[in-house]
Amino acid sequence: MQNGTRLAAVDLGSNSFRLEIGRYEFGHIQRVEYLKETVRQGNGLDEDRNLTRDAMERGWACLARFGERLAGFPRSQVRAVATQTLREARNREEFLSRGSEVLGYPIDVVSGPEEARLIYQGVARLLPQSDERRLVVDIGGRSTELILGQQFTPHAVASYRVGSVAWSQRYFANGEFTTQAFLAAEIAAKAVLDEALETFQPNAWEVAYGSSGTAGAVGDVLAAAGGPQGVITREGLDWLQERLLRAQSADRIRLEGLKEERRAVIGGGISVLRAVFDLLDIEQMQVAQGALRQGALYDLLDREQPGTDLRTATVNGLMQRFGVDMEHAERVARTACTLFDQATPFGSERASRKLDWAARLHEIGCLISHSDSHRHGAYILDNTDAAGFAVPELHRLGILVQGQRGKVRKLEADLQDPVFVLQLLSMRLAVALCHARRDPDTQGLSLQTQGHRFILKARAGWATAFPQSAHLLREEIQAWQKTPWELVVDLP
Amino acid sequence: MQNGTRLAAVDLGSNSFRLEIGRYEFGHIQRVEYLKETVRQGNGLDEDRNLTRDAMERGWACLARFGERLAGFPRSQVRAVATQTLREARNREEFLSRGSEVLGYPIDVVSGPEEARLIYQGVARLLPQSDERRLVVDIGGRSTELILGQQFTPHAVASYRVGSVAWSQRYFANGEFTTQAFLAAEIAAKAVLDEALETFQPNAWEVAYGSSGTAGAVGDVLAAAGGPQGVITREGLDWLQERLLRAQSADRIRLEGLKEERRAVIGGGISVLRAVFDLLDIEQMQVAQGALRQGALYDLLDREQPGTDLRTATVNGLMQRFGVDMEHAERVARTACTLFDQATPFGSERASRKLDWAARLHEIGCLISHSDSHRHGAYILDNTDAAGFAVPELHRLGILVQGQRGKVRKLEADLQDPVFVLQLLSMRLAVALCHARRDPDTQGLSLQTQGHRFILKARAGWATAFPQSAHLLREEIQAWQKTPWELVVDLP
Repeated sequence: MQNGTRLAAVDLGSNSFRLEIGRYEFGHIQRVEYLKETVRQGNGLDEDRNLTRDAMERGWACLARFGERLAGFPRSQVRAVATQTLREARNREEFLSRGSEVLGYPIDVVSGPEEARLIYQGVARLLPQSDERRLVVDIGGRSTELILGQQFTPHAVASYRVGSVAWSQRYFANGEFTTQAFLAAEIAAKAVLDEALETFQPNAWEVAYGSSGTAGAVGDVLAAAGGPQGVITREGLDWLQERLLRAQSADRIRLEGLKEERRAVIGGGISVLRAVFDLLDIEQMQVAQGALRQGALYDLLDREQPGTDLRTATVNGLMQRFGVDMEHAERVARTACTLFDQATPFGSERASRKLDWAARLHEIGCLISHSDSHRHGAYILDNTDAAGFAVPELHRLGILVQGQRGKVRKLEADLQDPVFVLQLLSMRLAVALCHARRDPDTQGLSLQTQGHRFILKARAGWATAFPQSAHLLREEIQAWQKTPWELVVDLP
Repeated sequence: MQNGTRLAAVDLGSNSFRLEIGRYEFGHIQRVEYLKETVRQGNGLDEDRNLTRDAMERGWACLARFGERLAGFPRSQVRAVATQTLREARNREEFLSRGSEVLGYPIDVVSGPEEARLIYQGVARLLPQSDERRLVVDIGGRSTELILGQQFTPHAVASYRVGSVAWSQRYFANGEFTTQAFLAAEIAAKAVLDEALETFQPNAWEVAYGSSGTAGAVGDVLAAAGGPQGVITREGLDWLQERLLRAQSADRIRLEGLKEERRAVIGGGISVLRAVFDLLDIEQMQVAQGALRQGALYDLLDREQPGTDLRTATVNGLMQRFGVDMEHAERVARTACTLFDQATPFGSERASRKLDWAARLHEIGCLISHSDSHRHGAYILDNTDAAGFAVPELHRLGILVQGQRGKVRKLEADLQDPVFVLQLLSMRLAVALCHARRDPDTQGLSLQTQGHRFILKARAGWATAFPQSAHLLREEIQAWQKTPWELVVDLP
């Protein structure tokens, strides 16, 4: 990546939306601009887990403002990620489709483990180089991420449904601070976090870091009260809770260093933080500068550099975990990408890379069962944790895996999208051509796109040399019937 | 098993339903009785893949007759298995529920690979002992099973959607035999069987066997025409097809040795058989005596003898395949079975064994993702090939796996069934008690059943010694609210 390139990340958190713009310089990203709005979408879920109209409007209005600031950024230099509230919201599609439109860039809902991974990346990149074994705790609005890591590598990630906004709403609904409410909130948080102890036990790490809102706010208040800069201690937490109890309610808190917008969620935040301290036996926690948005920025950077796209490593890991026949998977991937690159009028390296991943994963479902393995593959991709991938991105790979055979028109996919359709066709042709699990003769084949028509041509004699392949290609013509697309197979 | 014990198997095939009754004697099963009715349910699927009313009535009438014959057999000595037509039928539940009732025994729909395994077992048990590497081909009404095996062990199994009834219906609908129709039927069969070549290639086996209807009928006709007894050759098949072409239609065939009821499906059967011969390069095929129903009989036998229940080996295999933490799985299984055995008023060893399997598999879904792993586990069990298990049996294990946590009333299960409910409760309590992945103190606990109430008691001091476990047990009380059952937890 060229020095001076600008990169932007948007973090659609449950408590606030943030925009971070950075400039790439010699391997680092320097902050150029930072915007934060306390949208607090996380308390806008009704009892059916739908985002209320009001919460959506607040979100869209903020994204429109961010979108204005981002206008002109190339798409590959912007990453917008959404977390727990949008993971939970049933009507998220409605919010996301309008939201992407006003922002001007796609918004990726990321899974909890993926969020944790990005957080670690953000934290680690902004810390001094060190070999220490780290615990990172990120208490968000509706989820809390825990990570064990060393250097730039997260070794264990987990995400739990507990956070400052959700806990404030549930245990301090009327804004009143009582001993009972604090006790109930802390016990409940521990119950949710209980199984964390297995992985994040005290001897698994040396230094604890707290990233994002709650940790930052608590650190500020403790420092303003004369504590050391950027450190949260157990005593500090006790003192802070005592202060809240004395104030009796959120409106009446008078605490130096506490920002106005934090007031409404500090009760829940402290309860969760105290639960984490107690459960994991933490004595003190450093406030970390980096967070999700910086992780997303560095992820963009990695994706642009050959050989460092984490998603490639993830795909390889999935192939291993699900016992894929590597040789065959690579053969199908090679064949699919050859056809795609021949036929694409768009020349998209990114689309080709995604096709490559989907093809490598096309037999992933065989571990469950050979029959319907294409469906099992899609199920796995819709449900597995895959570092570096956003949820909709994995879903799209899953649709390509599912679409490797069967009737195209029955696929729940956007057949108006020419890039997707060509990926799908390339995948299907590659699977057919590699049917004998040997390298096919693709030298004699060419695929072209003409509007809504694909033309597959073979050199003279090809069909005679490969009669079974020719038969399968002719069958493929029918698979595209009753779709907006036509496949013409010319086998002289 | 005692000498003289009678065992019965019912095979609900797509072409015919069969009842085989045998008597166990010194490790072998001697035929006592054999009934066969050409129900031909396999041509009774309408275009929506529903069994027609008429096809259901034919099936029920036959099962009622079989049921009369079986009256008095203990349930553990009867196995009824259904295959491809009922795998495909969308309205199979309707047929099976009434069918089980008139038969008097449950009917298991088995998966294609499981059918193949049972076929191999039936074939192998009725062949002389030998070390030969076998290929077994079973062309049924709507599916064809291929198996590679040696001695009593199947090494590879596969099931394809091609069969005598389906192919006769599709390619010889009007009963007319033409060169074109035979050619089309054979090419189509090869297309479906194409990928078999990878596994069942000629150097993978030494002797080919053909089991069940089509192979038997062809063998009979060839023998009647002067060929060797029980052998199908390529020349024989050519000759037979030639005879059919000369007859021009099914009604006009005059062939010694051909039974009347075979007439309507011989065209499709021969096409598939010729495709198999050609594809796998078979020179000659021995007609095997054993088939699915004998396999099912020997399976009953194995299930009764300690240490030989194939399902236990399958469960262990699944644990390995999906990378389960064996130690923890066994701990949960032990705990669950201890509670179940304490509380069951039925004393069912079988129900306890199934609970043991479900508990061993309770973390199988973690390979896909830790979050929602209970659901992923159920998905895997609903879709994987598991030797020795019938489809509904696996589904029931899957429901137990899915029900290991979450609200009981949301589970799609029969909460009227007291055995299932106690299995479920035992599973859930075991998962809770083993939360720390250490052996729980079950000595101090007892579970009792009183009508629709379960009472879990702990010795004095237990709750103080294990506060987190006590908390989880108290939470479990709520999980059973709004169900027909009540859990009382007594922790003094």
